[in-house]
Amino acid sequence: MLTFVLVHGSWHDGSAWKAVIEHLEAKGHQAFAPTIAGHGKGVNKNVNHAQCTQSIVDYIVSKDLTDIVLLGHSFGGTVIAKVAEVIPDRIRRLIFFAAFIPNDGESLNDNVPSRSQALFDQLASESDDRTVMLPFEIWREAFLNDADLDLAKSSYAQLSSEPYQSMIDKLDLKRFYALPIPKSYLYCTEDTALPQGEWGWHPKMSSRLGQFRLVQMPGSHEVMFSNPIGLAEKIIVAGRD
Amino acid sequence: MLTFVLVHGSWHDGSAWKAVIEHLEAKGHQAFAPTIAGHGKGVNKNVNHAQCTQSIVDYIVSKDLTDIVLLGHSFGGTVIAKVAEVIPDRIRRLIFFAAFIPNDGESLNDNVPSRSQALFDQLASESDDRTVMLPFEIWREAFLNDADLDLAKSSYAQLSSEPYQSMIDKLDLKRFYALPIPKSYLYCTEDTALPQGEWGWHPKMSSRLGQFRLVQMPGSHEVMFSNPIGLAEKIIVAGRD
Amino acid sequence: MLTFVLVHGSWHDGSAWKAVIEHLEAKGHQAFAPTIAGHGKGVNKNVNHAQCTQSIVDYIVSKDLTDIVLLGHSFGGTVIAKVAEVIPDRIRRLIFFAAFIPNDGESLNDNVPSRSQALFDQLASESDDRTVMLPFEIWREAFLNDADLDLAKSSYAQLSSEPYQSMIDKLDLKRFYALPIPKSYLYCTEDTALPQGEWGWHPKMSSRLGQFRLVQMPGSHEVMFSNPIGLAEKIIVAGRD
Repeated sequence: MLTFVLVHGSWHDGSAWKAVIEHLEAKGHQAFAPTIAGHGKGVNKNVNHAQCTQSIVDYIVSKDLTDIVLLGHSFGGTVIAKVAEVIPDRIRRLIFFAAFIPNDGESLNDNVPSRSQALFDQLASESDDRTVMLPFEIWREAFLNDADLDLAKSSYAQLSSEPYQSMIDKLDLKRFYALPIPKSYLYCTEDTALPQGEWGWHPKMSSRLGQFRLVQMPGSHEVMFSNPIGLAEKIIVAGRD
Repeated sequence: MLTFVLVHGSWHDGSAWKAVIEHLEAKGHQAFAPTIAGHGKGVNKNVNHAQCTQSIVDYIVSKDLTDIVLLGHSFGGTVIAKVAEVIPDRIRRLIFFAAFIPNDGESLNDNVPSRSQALFDQLASESDDRTVMLPFEIWREAFLNDADLDLAKSSYAQLSSEPYQSMIDKLDLKRFYALPIPKSYLYCTEDTALPQGEWGWHPKMSSRLGQFRLVQMPGSHEVMFSNPIGLAEKIIVAGRD
Repeated sequence: MLTFVLVHGSWHDGSAWKAVIEHLEAKGHQAFAPTIAGHGKGVNKNVNHAQCTQSIVDYIVSKDLTDIVLLGHSFGGTVIAKVAEVIPDRIRRLIFFAAFIPNDGESLNDNVPSRSQALFDQLASESDDRTVMLPFEIWREAFLNDADLDLAKSSYAQLSSEPYQSMIDKLDLKRFYALPIPKSYLYCTEDTALPQGEWGWHPKMSSRLGQFRLVQMPGSHEVMFSNPIGLAEKIIVAGRD
C-alpha cells in the first residue's frame, strides 16, 4: 500500500485528481491532492514560486504524511522538486508526470518555446491580476487532443487563471539534483502541451534526472480527465519500488 | 455526422479507402474517396501537381460537398493543402495523415532523403512515361511492415505508377499557411515510409502546421490495408470538433 | 514454420528465452537459444568477441541449422552481425532486437554514452576477472522498468557477469554491411537500457541497416521476462517473410 501526494499543474487545482484518486483507493492505496497556493477559483493569485512550494510542504507536514510517493504534473514538477529539497526524509519516490524539470537556475518559462513565452507574457500583461488563462482552443487541440469536445469544455470549466510570477521565478535546484531519492518519469505519447521533438517533455526533461524509471501510456497531457483509470494504473507502476 | 473526403497518396487510387469508408459509414458518417488525376490504372499519367489539385477541387465542387473534413494521406497532404487554398469555405477541418506538408516553395521530393530522391529520379528516367513505380521490397518492408506477405502482395497489386512531375513541382503554399482552418495530424508509430528521426513524418511535417491536434495509433504507413477499422476510428477522433 | 535462433545479450545466457521459446513452439515454430561463449554462470569469462561469434557459428553448424531467422538481443546484435558474415547462406533473415549495430570498426562500447563507458570500465577494473556486473538498481530502473520488484529480483538472480573484452573489441563489419540478407529491427518503446534520444536504440542503430522492417511493442529492454508472450508474437511478425 502506497501513499500518494498528487500535485497538479498550471490552471488546475486539486479537484483535477478526483477520478484518479478513486481508482488509486480502489486498488488499496492512499492518495491526497492538495491545491497549490494561488491556484483554484476565487483565491488571491498574488503568489511566487516559493509560496507555491511552501503550501505543499505545509500540507504534507500538517498531515504528518511520511514515506510518500510525491507526484507532480506539468508545472507541479517544479514544485515537487523544491518540496523534495525541504522534506526529503518524507519522500519514498518522486514521479514527474509530463512535468517540467528545470535545470538549476531556470524558470518554467525558460523551458517552453519562445512562441509560448510570448503568448504567456502577453496574456499576463493584459490581465488585471498578472495571471495567464489558457485559451480554450489550445486546451482543446494541444492539451486534450484525445477527448471529445464535451469533455474538453467541461474540464476547461474547472480551470482557473495561473499566477504568472510562479512561471518566471528562477529556481535554485542544486540540492534537488543531489538528492538520492528514486525518480520516475511518466509520459503520455500523444502529449503536445509542449511540442514534441526538440522542446518535448521526454527525453528532454526526463534525461535531466540521471537514472530514472520511464513509464509511458497513450494519451494527452490531460489523461486525468480523458483516462483517469489508465492513468491511475500507470501511477502505480511508476510509484512502486 | 461528419462528411469526410479522403485523398489518397502516391501509387494509390480512391479504391484504397474501401474498407475504411465502410467503417466510417457504419459509424454514421459520410465519406468520399476521389481518385486524383493521373492516378489509378490505365489512365494518362502526364499530369502536374496543379492538375492533381484541380481534379480534387472539381470533385468536391461538382458534388457540392460542404462542411467537409478533408484528409490527405502521404502525397495527398500536398494536394489537400493546395485544395484548401482554392475552396477554404467548404472545409471544416484538415487531417494530414502521414502526409507531406512542404514548406512554401518546396516540392514533395524536397522532403525525402537524398537516397529516395535518387531512386525516384532513376526510376522515372527508366520508365517510358516519366513515372515512378515503388519496388515491391520497399512496399513490403518499409510501407506495410505490419502486414503479412499475402496482404503485402494483394495490396501491391492494387498500386499503379506515380506521375513524377507531381512529386517535383514546387508548391506556392503562402495562402495555405495563412488559413485559419483547424488541422489535425494523424501518425502511425511504426510508419517507416519516411525513415524515422531527422526525416520522419512527425514532428518534422506536423510542426509546420503551427497549432494542430495530434492523433497517433500503432501501425505502418498503409494501415488502410492492415487495420482499416482502427484507422477509421482514429480518423473520427482526428476529424471531430 | 520458421526456425529461430535467439542470441541473448550481455549478462544473460540462453535460459533467458525459455518462456519465449515455449510460445514460439506453441505457434508451430522451432526455436534454439544457445549460450554465447564466456556467458552464463560458472564458466571461464576470459573470451574476446571473436570467440563469442565462433561459439554461435559452431552451435548452428553442429546442429546443421539452415534457413534460420537469426535474432540478436542487445549485445547479441554485435554477435549475429559477425555470425552472418561467416555463414550467410544459412540465414533467411536477421532480427536485431534492441540490439547494438556498431558502425564498421566500432565496438559495443563506442555506442554507449560516456557515463556508461566510465561505469563499465570502473566495474571491470574492480572485478577480479575483468568482467562487468550490472548494478541491481540500473537493472530495476532502466532495464526492467515495466516489471514489479519481485520479477526484477528473480530475473536479476539469473544474470552473470559480462566479459569486458567482448564489449570493447573493435569489429570489422564491412562484409556484414554488404550482405543482402533481409533485416528487421524490433524495439520496445519504453526501453531505457540506452537513454532515449541521441543515444537511443531506434532510429540510431536501426538506421544503419539501410532497408529494414521496423516492429515495435510496448515494454522495456527485458520483455523476455516481463512479457514473453507478447515478445514471441512480435518476433514472429519481425521474422516472417
